[in-house]
Amino acid sequence: MPISDKVRKSMEQGSWIRRMFEEGSLLKQKYGDEKVFDLTLGNPIMEPPAEVHKELKKLAAEPLPGMHRYMENAGYAATRGAVAAQLSLESGLNFAMSDIVMTCGAAGALNVVLKTVLNQGDEVIVFAPYFPEYLNYIDNHNGVARILPTDEQFIPRLDVLSNAIGARTRVVLLNSPNNPSGAVYGEDFMRQLGELLSKKEAEYGIPLFLINDEPYRRIVYDGQACPQVWPWYQNSIVVTSHSKDLALPGERIGYIAIHPDCDQRQELVDGFIYCNRILGYVNAPALMQHLVQRLQSVTVPVSEYQKKRDFLYHHLTEMGYSMVKPGGTFYMFPRSPLADDVAFVRELQEWLVLTVPGSGFGSPGYFRISYCVDDRTLEGSMDGFRKVARKFKLG
Amino acid sequence: MPISDKVRKSMEQGSWIRRMFEEGSLLKQKYGDEKVFDLTLGNPIMEPPAEVHKELKKLAAEPLPGMHRYMENAGYAATRGAVAAQLSLESGLNFAMSDIVMTCGAAGALNVVLKTVLNQGDEVIVFAPYFPEYLNYIDNHNGVARILPTDEQFIPRLDVLSNAIGARTRVVLLNSPNNPSGAVYGEDFMRQLGELLSKKEAEYGIPLFLINDEPYRRIVYDGQACPQVWPWYQNSIVVTSHSKDLALPGERIGYIAIHPDCDQRQELVDGFIYCNRILGYVNAPALMQHLVQRLQSVTVPVSEYQKKRDFLYHHLTEMGYSMVKPGGTFYMFPRSPLADDVAFVRELQEWLVLTVPGSGFGSPGYFRISYCVDDRTLEGSMDGFRKVARKFKLG
Repeated sequence: MPISDKVRKSMEQGSWIRRMFEEGSLLKQKYGDEKVFDLTLGNPIMEPPAEVHKELKKLAAEPLPGMHRYMENAGYAATRGAVAAQLSLESGLNFAMSDIVMTCGAAGALNVVLKTVLNQGDEVIVFAPYFPEYLNYIDNHNGVARILPTDEQFIPRLDVLSNAIGARTRVVLLNSPNNPSGAVYGEDFMRQLGELLSKKEAEYGIPLFLINDEPYRRIVYDGQACPQVWPWYQNSIVVTSHSKDLALPGERIGYIAIHPDCDQRQELVDGFIYCNRILGYVNAPALMQHLVQRLQSVTVPVSEYQKKRDFLYHHLTEMGYSMVKPGGTFYMFPRSPLADDVAFVRELQEWLVLTVPGSGFGSPGYFRISYCVDDRTLEGSMDGFRKVARKFKLG
Repeated sequence: MPISDKVRKSMEQGSWIRRMFEEGSLLKQKYGDEKVFDLTLGNPIMEPPAEVHKELKKLAAEPLPGMHRYMENAGYAATRGAVAAQLSLESGLNFAMSDIVMTCGAAGALNVVLKTVLNQGDEVIVFAPYFPEYLNYIDNHNGVARILPTDEQFIPRLDVLSNAIGARTRVVLLNSPNNPSGAVYGEDFMRQLGELLSKKEAEYGIPLFLINDEPYRRIVYDGQACPQVWPWYQNSIVVTSHSKDLALPGERIGYIAIHPDCDQRQELVDGFIYCNRILGYVNAPALMQHLVQRLQSVTVPVSEYQKKRDFLYHHLTEMGYSMVKPGGTFYMFPRSPLADDVAFVRELQEWLVLTVPGSGFGSPGYFRISYCVDDRTLEGSMDGFRKVARKFKLG
């Protein structure tokens, strides 16, 4: 075997998202792109806002001296400062440059934080449905994922969480707004969570970190703002990226932000910077750091995603599908009309509509629709959804 | 303790490169930038070649549709194809797009390969002096570094290597052209190494991978070309970046190339692509992939580095310093006139000349000079080198 046993086993289990995407590619080859309605991937169709293009043109036309060189592993001071200023504005807290570490996307950010805080065998609590890469990231750093359920609205159950936290629990990992459910956790929930974690931390006498992975923070609907972790718990860390708000997923630009009042903040940030280096990320891509520095308040037009959500929600509920209306992101996580969500996704696939079974997110009995696609694809998928709804006598 | 025991211990040991750089920053604050001659970091002063600026301007002026989106985890087909074409040209072998995986720099590339091939406790052979991050990268994936000596010319000793390879040896990690020694391993050495590894592989009946980390492949002097691993050993993998040849170290753009005739090549490449994803790199930065696609044959003017090498070599040997003349890179690794290389580096520091002790590279008794700096810094350092040479009665 040329590759390690662990990697081989992990590859064999595979990812449902990728599997459905790959099967979809074969279908596209067979039937033509136009005939296949691919709702599997969270790869935004939207181009970056005009400000991104403008800033890139400026940087290309008048290159700053040394703008492609190494900088400090934490990132450029000016970029870290700009992120801190924006977070201060959003939170009312006083973030400093030294509370920010620029990273290779949110995935890089989360790996850096986990590497920094986890001793071998430490537990990370994750709520189902979850973004499946979390399990890989936790395993990369010899941590143990502890998966807990959510309620009917996809909100973590605090009673279950309270019982689950033990002496080896090091991290509670949130993802609000949530992929795949689209749930946005409310302020009441955040407050109660903060109270619970403070109590548990005092009980066990070791730091318990709340991490929110929030690349979809700005992609929220109906005029709501996304409730933050900051006001409710000091040992909070946010990992995020500009993949969704600036539509730059391929550029791998994100950051870690730590609560300005976090215990032993300096030691943690030093650890993040160190782990950013030794994990081989080294630093977030230089040009993208320059680029996002002046674009901290810019976001793609969220109303366009909201229109897509409304279209889908309206038509699918009318057909008899049952779902929680997503408050944000560009995902929807309806109930599978069949108990076997994989079998149901195969039924949709028969009509060239591609989705991902909930099993891929630790929640069998559901399926995920990604609607960051063009309207043609969304509209085109309706026929397949309707035919399958009729077959199973929904509505 | 907010951070993991292992990370904390590793941070306390620290890196000599970074320590000397940080002490240098304090000296610069105290005496002014102009007065301090910093030869610690491998952060090229040279701006990228004009072709880089031109290509960036073009991409900014006429953005390709979707050019910042996710692509396959392996990278763009066009970029992988361009790298394969260039490698085919250089090697006479027939590299295909599928032999290339684009990565976040050479550091990302090496971490991906190590994650893919190492089972817990597998050994990776490294030759001193070595780039110190190798030890972190090996540890990230639960491997064990086995450090072997080199000869007077900094060439690995094949007799020692032959005795060291055992049933748990999975990787022999080369770095030619070498940081910190500047050594370029010759063709005879590569051939003999290939023969030895083929023999050992047959003896133990498991794949034994030769990895060459070669970001300095194009930075070689005196009209020489850098001998390749390809002709001599099938189970060869190259990890590299455009940090040095295109002077883009902050952009994190590099790749993995695998020998077209490597055993179970497809399974390995699938593993690389998978590990690129699960390690949180996800993909090499998109814009930089577009950018380097048409610049595979472009290199910074190497003659400028050669002039700096010649200047340093001439003056330092004249002062009585003893060293092997580097065949490439932008480092020089002279013998420390004091047995205690840290004490010697402190002597230079007294004259505001900053270098790194050989202890930082696993080779006490030497010190590293990085000469990818402007001429003013090089010339300015001469006085300090001369004063210390006189103090220790060299020459």
